[in-house]
Amino acid sequence: MDGPRRDVGRGPVHRRRDELMTMEFAHRRPPGSPLPGSPQHFFLGNDEGEFAHLFDSLVTVKLTGDETDGQFGVFTLEAPKGDTIPAHAHADVHEIFYVLNGAAHVWIQDGEGVVHDRVLRPGDFGYVPAGLPHTFRVEADETKIFGVCSGGFERFFAAAGRQAEEPVLPDPPYVPSTEQLMAAGKEFRNQFMPHLRLDQR
Amino acid sequence: MDGPRRDVGRGPVHRRRDELMTMEFAHRRPPGSPLPGSPQHFFLGNDEGEFAHLFDSLVTVKLTGDETDGQFGVFTLEAPKGDTIPAHAHADVHEIFYVLNGAAHVWIQDGEGVVHDRVLRPGDFGYVPAGLPHTFRVEADETKIFGVCSGGFERFFAAAGRQAEEPVLPDPPYVPSTEQLMAAGKEFRNQFMPHLRLDQR
Repeated sequence: MDGPRRDVGRGPVHRRRDELMTMEFAHRRPPGSPLPGSPQHFFLGNDEGEFAHLFDSLVTVKLTGDETDGQFGVFTLEAPKGDTIPAHAHADVHEIFYVLNGAAHVWIQDGEGVVHDRVLRPGDFGYVPAGLPHTFRVEADETKIFGVCSGGFERFFAAAGRQAEEPVLPDPPYVPSTEQLMAAGKEFRNQFMPHLRLDQR
Repeated sequence: MDGPRRDVGRGPVHRRRDELMTMEFAHRRPPGSPLPGSPQHFFLGNDEGEFAHLFDSLVTVKLTGDETDGQFGVFTLEAPKGDTIPAHAHADVHEIFYVLNGAAHVWIQDGEGVVHDRVLRPGDFGYVPAGLPHTFRVEADETKIFGVCSGGFERFFAAAGRQAEEPVLPDPPYVPSTEQLMAAGKEFRNQFMPHLRLDQR
């Protein structure tokens, strides 16, 4: 991607979220998931959900597009202090970061190519609308982030990484092959930009 | 409402969320709101957002349907130990409860009329799909709940209550008139059922 893309970041065209995402990802529901898989009520304890390991993070999915008619999904991400993840952009997916514990440095490139960043601490919030390149770096051990995303995207982490049986951090980290990461990126329309070092601008 | 309504709770018909909610509620954006009002990136500190007082609660809206093409909104709700709020159901709106601090007892009536309840503590999660009658009672002081809802509904609290200037609990509580509560309920399609004592079944 050369220079700022002026068509990125102006917000997605209105389209039916449920058409885009829901039907595509129901097959990704892991066996034994405590989530109902359709719009029903349910409760989860702190240590319950669908677990995934990706790099050094534990992702716990609490709610998916299957339960919300494709509207939104909810997950937590826990990680130790670590490196900046590869920059990426998802054309159809809006995403929030809400820090529960620890700290995360977030970088977001807007539609004009300007990079905005902030270190988010407990209670702080960041919003990345669809299409904007972004990245983050966990700055403290025991960081826990609450994420909300357009429905369906919450299953990206298990697709790019691997399903986990228990809510523990991966040890050692699970490093996907380039093939797995690119395939998951293609399936979830998450474009990686490994040479875009937003954290160095 | 006599007896269980079997048509409620089977999940909403697929419909365009943005058609239902977004265009209707943009006029509710308060002057001086730190939210951008469209799909742009932004950050908020722990004490920032759009503030509302309703009964004994402080609601801080962090994200609305205006920023997410009508997909979802995000808010926190803070309250002292208190009474069960009136039972209600919103036909088009999915909603989560995620407890950050304190404790909240949540009751949800499913499509068969069976009431399910749990006391949620930090890290616990509850999901109420559209149409199901539900209520909650804050069980401890300094309770803080993170909410996510279908886009647009996050502005219900300011409509039923009042906009607040600062992130403090209302003192005294702001008790809306029946007229205000019913008008907000009608506007946001939130049906109150004051005689439905889910907490006594």
